[in-house]
Amino acid sequence: MQSELRKQLLDAFTNAGESYLSGQRLAELVGCSRTAVWKHIEELRKEGFELEAVRKKGYRIVKTPEKLTADEIMLGLTTCFIGKNIHYEESVESTQKIAHQLAAKNVPEGTVVIADEQRSGRGRMNRNWHSPKYTGIWMSLILRPNIPLSKAPQLTLLTAVAIVQAIEEITGITAEIKWPNDVLIQGRKITGILTELQAEADRIHSIIIGIGINVNQKKEDFPRELQEKASSLLIEKGTPVSRAEMIRSIFKHFEKLYLLYLDKGFFPIKLLWESYAISIGKILKARTLTEVIEGKALGITEEGVLKIEDASGTIHHVYSADIEL
Amino acid sequence: MQSELRKQLLDAFTNAGESYLSGQRLAELVGCSRTAVWKHIEELRKEGFELEAVRKKGYRIVKTPEKLTADEIMLGLTTCFIGKNIHYEESVESTQKIAHQLAAKNVPEGTVVIADEQRSGRGRMNRNWHSPKYTGIWMSLILRPNIPLSKAPQLTLLTAVAIVQAIEEITGITAEIKWPNDVLIQGRKITGILTELQAEADRIHSIIIGIGINVNQKKEDFPRELQEKASSLLIEKGTPVSRAEMIRSIFKHFEKLYLLYLDKGFFPIKLLWESYAISIGKILKARTLTEVIEGKALGITEEGVLKIEDASGTIHHVYSADIEL
Repeated sequence: MQSELRKQLLDAFTNAGESYLSGQRLAELVGCSRTAVWKHIEELRKEGFELEAVRKKGYRIVKTPEKLTADEIMLGLTTCFIGKNIHYEESVESTQKIAHQLAAKNVPEGTVVIADEQRSGRGRMNRNWHSPKYTGIWMSLILRPNIPLSKAPQLTLLTAVAIVQAIEEITGITAEIKWPNDVLIQGRKITGILTELQAEADRIHSIIIGIGINVNQKKEDFPRELQEKASSLLIEKGTPVSRAEMIRSIFKHFEKLYLLYLDKGFFPIKLLWESYAISIGKILKARTLTEVIEGKALGITEEGVLKIEDASGTIHHVYSADIEL
Repeated sequence: MQSELRKQLLDAFTNAGESYLSGQRLAELVGCSRTAVWKHIEELRKEGFELEAVRKKGYRIVKTPEKLTADEIMLGLTTCFIGKNIHYEESVESTQKIAHQLAAKNVPEGTVVIADEQRSGRGRMNRNWHSPKYTGIWMSLILRPNIPLSKAPQLTLLTAVAIVQAIEEITGITAEIKWPNDVLIQGRKITGILTELQAEADRIHSIIIGIGINVNQKKEDFPRELQEKASSLLIEKGTPVSRAEMIRSIFKHFEKLYLLYLDKGFFPIKLLWESYAISIGKILKARTLTEVIEGKALGITEEGVLKIEDASGTIHHVYSADIEL
């Protein structure tokens, strides 16, 4: 199917919501014959869309395919630039890798790479990220903010806030943030965020935010060593969650927060972040590459750096670490 | 020629300095027959090395080829890790591009990409950098310091100091630094530095320092629009300069400064930098992406950020700008 016609057709169904659209009306809206509309609807069915057809009323979409498609995500997307340009792939090595290549080619800000499976998904510090097919959200978002390098960690924190808000909207569950880049429910990891840069020493070319969210995995779908540490929205909520709906919600919350950030700076984001953070005010251990710092987490600085006060009263600024509560 | 034998042979000539080495001695040093030595010496001659052969004394190298080779640079290199792994190419699009690819493959720290020509060399802000064949030094150095992102600009400043010291050693000329990344002689640009990063928000994977030095260009070799702004070591000194010697000197000074930096931090580098900087204490205009700041340059911060005091007494912190004196 020509992508422009398909897009127009899906847009028409989005705008119609629960209402039915007749073949005649669809033909008018997309500017082609009723026969062409009928042919396109058959193609959508082949791709896994379920369309209900009611005599004298017309068509409406009742179920979108299990496989994510850019179209399905676009269907009902309300953002201005985040997620307006989607590169979908069924299976990739890593969405970050593709996003890095696209970023170097100057794709528009807000472009997203989404895959149904990552064969070698990565987390922070080059760790593996388990990304099995059809069950999670594995995506990378390309941004081009005009901010100094030192502020890049703020965008990890902003992303965590957007994800907590999206989880709340879609599932009603209140998640928590563990500095710097984890989103947890009941102490188990639901989401990891990996923020990478293409930059000159004094200028950011692109920030590439990798987001991995466990959505519809059952407990037994996780490797044994992750079963106690990780969870999914399905496990926590008890019912499956639409990945497309979740993605749209993340895009919406992210765009709102990002525009706020570009306009007002990090301060309003910091307040939101602190309201969701579990580590602040608690005694914890921070393992950096070179040392272990134990003490009370006082909060984060304007630049997103964690402040820890040790037993001697010394305040440490921690840029990068693993946290144990 | 097998690269290991060639390396051993060139090492032997390096160690011998001005002395002659007999065929017998060379055969012993590299562990092969005199016939093999003779064959290898013929191959070096074909590649442009000039070897003097004196009866009863032996051989010594009197001239290295115009074309740079990794071997020639290695010949006499005194560093421990900077430049010990050289990727030489006769002609490339950009040494930065190749260095980025190598950096992603975890080559050792200190690996350098050197080309005799760049077909589309780049400077800051994606500007062109004119890099004609055989006349300049076009190279990219891969580093992996464990420093926060905000400190990356310090390495641009450190590199500028190393280049000023190398120019002084090789030509006797005292060059000057213009913040952030230019080295000038008599107000004309000799060197540009482009520092790029591969990083996570809280951790640097690699810093890739691109260095372009105009060495043996004549005035008429520069495009007309650059003739008043740019110069070369040949123009300033009056005689040609060995690029290999200049590269070795940069590696030597760079390594010394870099080890000092990793050990003692930026402060000793900052003092050196300020002693060579022309802009400090002067009235200047800084054009950033969003505004023009006019005022007196007070100095640089611990992080390499330029401080400018405007007429109203307000102090501006400039992360990235073009400077007009």
